Amino acid sequence: MNVESVTIKEIAKICHVGVSTVSRAINNHPDINQETKDRIMKAIEDYGYVPNNAARNLKITDGKTIAVLVKGITNPFFSDMIRVFERDLVERGYSMILQHVDEHQDEADAAMLLEREKRLNGIIFLGGIFARAEERLDRIGVPFVFSTVGVTDSVKHNRYAYVAVNDVSESRRMVEYLLDLGMKRIAIICASERDRSIGALRLDGYFEALEARNITPDPKLVLRPVDEQDTYSYKNGYERVKRLYKSGTKFDCVYAISDTMAIGAIRALRDLGLRVPENVSVAGFDGLTTGRYTIPTLTTLKQPNEAMAHESAMALFEQIEHPENPKQHKLFEGELIIGESTK
Amino acid sequence: MNVESVTIKEIAKICHVGVSTVSRAINNHPDINQETKDRIMKAIEDYGYVPNNAARNLKITDGKTIAVLVKGITNPFFSDMIRVFERDLVERGYSMILQHVDEHQDEADAAMLLEREKRLNGIIFLGGIFARAEERLDRIGVPFVFSTVGVTDSVKHNRYAYVAVNDVSESRRMVEYLLDLGMKRIAIICASERDRSIGALRLDGYFEALEARNITPDPKLVLRPVDEQDTYSYKNGYERVKRLYKSGTKFDCVYAISDTMAIGAIRALRDLGLRVPENVSVAGFDGLTTGRYTIPTLTTLKQPNEAMAHESAMALFEQIEHPENPKQHKLFEGELIIGESTK
Repeated sequence: MNVESVTIKEIAKICHVGVSTVSRAINNHPDINQETKDRIMKAIEDYGYVPNNAARNLKITDGKTIAVLVKGITNPFFSDMIRVFERDLVERGYSMILQHVDEHQDEADAAMLLEREKRLNGIIFLGGIFARAEERLDRIGVPFVFSTVGVTDSVKHNRYAYVAVNDVSESRRMVEYLLDLGMKRIAIICASERDRSIGALRLDGYFEALEARNITPDPKLVLRPVDEQDTYSYKNGYERVKRLYKSGTKFDCVYAISDTMAIGAIRALRDLGLRVPENVSVAGFDGLTTGRYTIPTLTTLKQPNEAMAHESAMALFEQIEHPENPKQHKLFEGELIIGESTK
Repeated sequence: MNVESVTIKEIAKICHVGVSTVSRAINNHPDINQETKDRIMKAIEDYGYVPNNAARNLKITDGKTIAVLVKGITNPFFSDMIRVFERDLVERGYSMILQHVDEHQDEADAAMLLEREKRLNGIIFLGGIFARAEERLDRIGVPFVFSTVGVTDSVKHNRYAYVAVNDVSESRRMVEYLLDLGMKRIAIICASERDRSIGALRLDGYFEALEARNITPDPKLVLRPVDEQDTYSYKNGYERVKRLYKSGTKFDCVYAISDTMAIGAIRALRDLGLRVPENVSVAGFDGLTTGRYTIPTLTTLKQPNEAMAHESAMALFEQIEHPENPKQHKLFEGELIIGESTK
């Protein structure tokens, strides 16, 4: 008997049981006699049967592969997205190679090298900074899409496919909300000056909001990370607020450009004996699930990250299947979530 | 000129600049004249030079691939580990395929199918349940290692390589600590009855601790998820506590077998008007970074997950390189972290 061709019906016939009994055995269903189960598992082993449910879930990929290059693999914002990519890619018969790009590494270089080594069908860039990368991006020989990469000048609108929110205007919206609450001295926990992507864009939104109200930004309220590698971490948010407080600079609000940093900031304020939001309001950006369960819950700007992941995969498939069509650009709207951390 | 052989020195020579200038151009260093930079980038493009730093970070893999099959890809406990795998595998010249196994899928079946389709050199199983899977595991033709998979009878001590904590004794340790604090009615938020892995083991530890003090467990305090898919989530912890409270069952402590569920539980108690730890103590398991920043900080049993990830990779390399040697089994010690959530 050809190993590849064994079906569940044949296994059932060999074992003199019904198909549903074989299915129960495979699925570790409690409602099956152990001896029968052992007999079925032995037949499955002997005849090399691969259960259908696994086959359904893991379609044959014919070696078609898509790489996801992620900057900040431990960011929970990305891990939800990775799960969506994985599902969408497998559904279309691709397998997913996940590769981390570290903070000091250039994503475009990483992509070129990966492409040389692997037979890739496409690349999804998740996060990252693509300043002045055109020359190198143009040398990537497979379709690619930017997913939640800040749409800066260098990610030109009609040149590359991307899925993103408008980081400048969404950030501006958050700061305007905070100003509407009556905040006078809003500190921003942002990225390093080297970051020309979402970090720079969200900071631009902050400046725009202040400017529109004729407020001169105070450089002492612009809090940069000491260790770039660690920007979007609880720890960085925690330490920036502690340092700000010790500097004696007055502030009545902290806006962090990620929820992780905002949660760290809230904890720092607590340790300093300040109450959130009574003494200081705190807001984040991203809309992580975690912020819905913290005490206080977090005011944030939610990016629809799972929908964005799905659209990124679709935009890539579109490029692979219809390379002649124009590249897709999708800007999603964020959602202002009002939590207990501001008032 | 052979494209593969272009070096940074040759690019420097072509452009009539020093090597350090080429390096500045590649690394987007601000301290370089734009015209010079453009000239260098053009040469890099024309001659197909791949910068060394990318080459160093992304070693040539010769198509050697290791698959990581993860059950619960969005669990932050795993995402830290995935980052470590990725680093260790790339360092040894492997690329990593990350594949999610969903809650209702059998990991062993998934592995067999993946192995058929891909030329894999090894597999790391991250999390998951391997009850009665011997027949199928034995059909996997490449080395594999269980990483933070509960070491149950079916993951036999000398049969498979594994890296884990002793989930029974670590969980028992936590419950003994809670009993020592004077807790009388400890509710446990655990996994479904179908879970025969870490869920069952941590529950066993709970029962052992009670039994050692001659306390009869109250089935009303054993809180099972409604939706298995969602077991280790904030939401599940939140909903289990709300339901327990509404049932009228008395309790003075909640022990959740994951930190995510414990954080959800704390939020539910807050919404019910109960104070943690004054009215109810709460403890988790895993030692996520998040729990060090929540209010209150979380009492938990920390698994050294990054060290465990590294050892898992090492155990796999050992099997690949020395298949004749006995398989490695490493049990790590957990660490009891005392936070503000218990007293």
